[in-house]
Amino acid sequence: MNFDLLSTDGAARLGTLETPHGTVRTPAFMPVGTQAAMKGVHWHEVREAGADIVLSNTYHLMLRPGAERIGKLGGLHAFMGWSGPILTDSGGFQVMSLSDLRKVDEQAVTFRSHVDGATVVLSPERAVDIQRLLGSDIAMQLDECVALPAERADLARAMNLSLRWAERCKRAFEPDLPSGRALFAIVQGGDVPALRRESAQKLVEMDFQGYAIGGLAVGEPQETMLAMIEETAPLLPEDRPRYLMGVGTPDDLLKSVARGIDMFDCVLPTRNGRHGLAYTRFGPVNLKNARHQEDPRPLDPESPCRIAREVPRAYLHHLVRANETLGAMYLSIVNIAYFQTLMQGVRAAIAERRFADHASAVTAGWSAGDLPAL
Amino acid sequence: MNFDLLSTDGAARLGTLETPHGTVRTPAFMPVGTQAAMKGVHWHEVREAGADIVLSNTYHLMLRPGAERIGKLGGLHAFMGWSGPILTDSGGFQVMSLSDLRKVDEQAVTFRSHVDGATVVLSPERAVDIQRLLGSDIAMQLDECVALPAERADLARAMNLSLRWAERCKRAFEPDLPSGRALFAIVQGGDVPALRRESAQKLVEMDFQGYAIGGLAVGEPQETMLAMIEETAPLLPEDRPRYLMGVGTPDDLLKSVARGIDMFDCVLPTRNGRHGLAYTRFGPVNLKNARHQEDPRPLDPESPCRIAREVPRAYLHHLVRANETLGAMYLSIVNIAYFQTLMQGVRAAIAERRFADHASAVTAGWSAGDLPAL
Repeated sequence: MNFDLLSTDGAARLGTLETPHGTVRTPAFMPVGTQAAMKGVHWHEVREAGADIVLSNTYHLMLRPGAERIGKLGGLHAFMGWSGPILTDSGGFQVMSLSDLRKVDEQAVTFRSHVDGATVVLSPERAVDIQRLLGSDIAMQLDECVALPAERADLARAMNLSLRWAERCKRAFEPDLPSGRALFAIVQGGDVPALRRESAQKLVEMDFQGYAIGGLAVGEPQETMLAMIEETAPLLPEDRPRYLMGVGTPDDLLKSVARGIDMFDCVLPTRNGRHGLAYTRFGPVNLKNARHQEDPRPLDPESPCRIAREVPRAYLHHLVRANETLGAMYLSIVNIAYFQTLMQGVRAAIAERRFADHASAVTAGWSAGDLPAL
Repeated sequence: MNFDLLSTDGAARLGTLETPHGTVRTPAFMPVGTQAAMKGVHWHEVREAGADIVLSNTYHLMLRPGAERIGKLGGLHAFMGWSGPILTDSGGFQVMSLSDLRKVDEQAVTFRSHVDGATVVLSPERAVDIQRLLGSDIAMQLDECVALPAERADLARAMNLSLRWAERCKRAFEPDLPSGRALFAIVQGGDVPALRRESAQKLVEMDFQGYAIGGLAVGEPQETMLAMIEETAPLLPEDRPRYLMGVGTPDDLLKSVARGIDMFDCVLPTRNGRHGLAYTRFGPVNLKNARHQEDPRPLDPESPCRIAREVPRAYLHHLVRANETLGAMYLSIVNIAYFQTLMQGVRAAIAERRFADHASAVTAGWSAGDLPAL
């Protein structure tokens, strides 16, 4: 994997990431296909919406259909029919948030599968092995992620365990490193600046191909998240990509890019699409609202997304109210496209060194109100 | 509307139906978009699968979002974004099968809306008016459909009421008949040959633009259905299309075409797709079955449908087992495409006067087993 930093504008960075399955333009937003599928969206639609790279979840795939099975079938790219780059998380976050009866010790995390109740052991070495079987272009270290608020002692313990697991993941990953594939480390430390700095410094000493900031967007206020990015990003090497995990809203993205983040992932576009919410340059539009019921206009006549540009709001409203799958399908595409258009605008603005003005203009658009009334 | 009978082969008929929104090649299978949406399928995918015409349901649309609302928004074509021909049923069948507290009298059927509990009156005149507001290319008369088995007296009463309602629909429809739009009558009479014949003869005397056979596929054996078609079809005018409502399986379609039917509609392709079943030239394939879990092969390498031709069975199995929407989306497209491919084969065979041989070969394919084992 090769990362080229093409341009900067303040702390904001424009780059490209070369992977075995193609180039990722950064700042990049990665839509999430948790179970090797994007909910309600065809893969060609993800590509057409402008996404270079997608994320899939080790935790879900190791339980069903199983990493060995996907490996035998030629890896995740062949299995699900997405030919572009794939980043997989390590399973750590989902073990904490989704599984029962988990036990973390030095060696591994042990938990009960939500699919069949089996006891599963996930060690740093196994997490790397699973991601190798999946054929991920970018693999993540196994970490322990603690929900906020949390005690400092617990945050410190988890951060230090994650450091030792980073080292073990690196040792497991590098001996037969498949050509061009990368392993990223994850900075932990909760909302404690000193822990964040210590985590970042020690991981940088270990020399990873990329660095994620994890354990944020887990219940803390946005200011805390931004403060932790500010503590961390300046310590990370300029020539490696920086990935803020599980983030976020369009506003989170702009403010994080301004602080030096290159990559994001989040389920918001598809999850909120399923709940009747459309992201637009006018801000979020709730299609459940009765004001749309006789509105023949599209969400945004100037959108690059055909559905946002052509489908009547009245029809979207009907589909959402009638609980028709097509409503979730349409709004998920609209939202994936909006997030990609947002990032495309961000990249163009950084290239022209007008990122701050651009971000202000985008933000002002969200609060200036929807399309004028008919 | 204009129907051209191009060719016959035994009782099987090849034709074209010209509507204000384009030509329908018959025999035709109409996929069903009940609530102005095809469950899990984009409209362009319905077209690409080869469908010329779709069906939507008056009963659902009159309750939500309402016929006047769709009319105000430019009709169903503009509302849902399907530019081809649309046939709408009259609501009669769904009132019987879906609504509570229904009361049928000479004037109308009165029922309680399943959406908001409101009391709704549907008369023959209102059914026609609703379908005019929807902008249907083909409207259906209001009828009373009785579930089988039923007493002869009840079947006779409902058949005679449906005849009087046919007359009222015709009177309501014709004065300001929108150019090219058609109204079809519905033959009733349950499983009683004499009632079927009487219904057909009296409707033919009224001179409709097309004739449907209703009240079948409501629980009776296939032989009964085929026997009723045999009683009815020969009485219908050669130069008018014949539509068998709510039918059916691929086998039903072949056997009904052989008895002179030109049009069909059914929810089977999408409903069974949502339940993990794929229709193929090898017969139905249940993707839930564990035998597919490591099978890298597609459903059918020779299918004209890209998904049937390319997507690994192992992935389809995973999507169905993991309850991912994409599984239902894929299998619904596969099934709509299979039904359209089936009808395309039927049309080609009638044109070449080899329909009986073709139907035998297709049927033999279903029982010859799936793709050979790897």
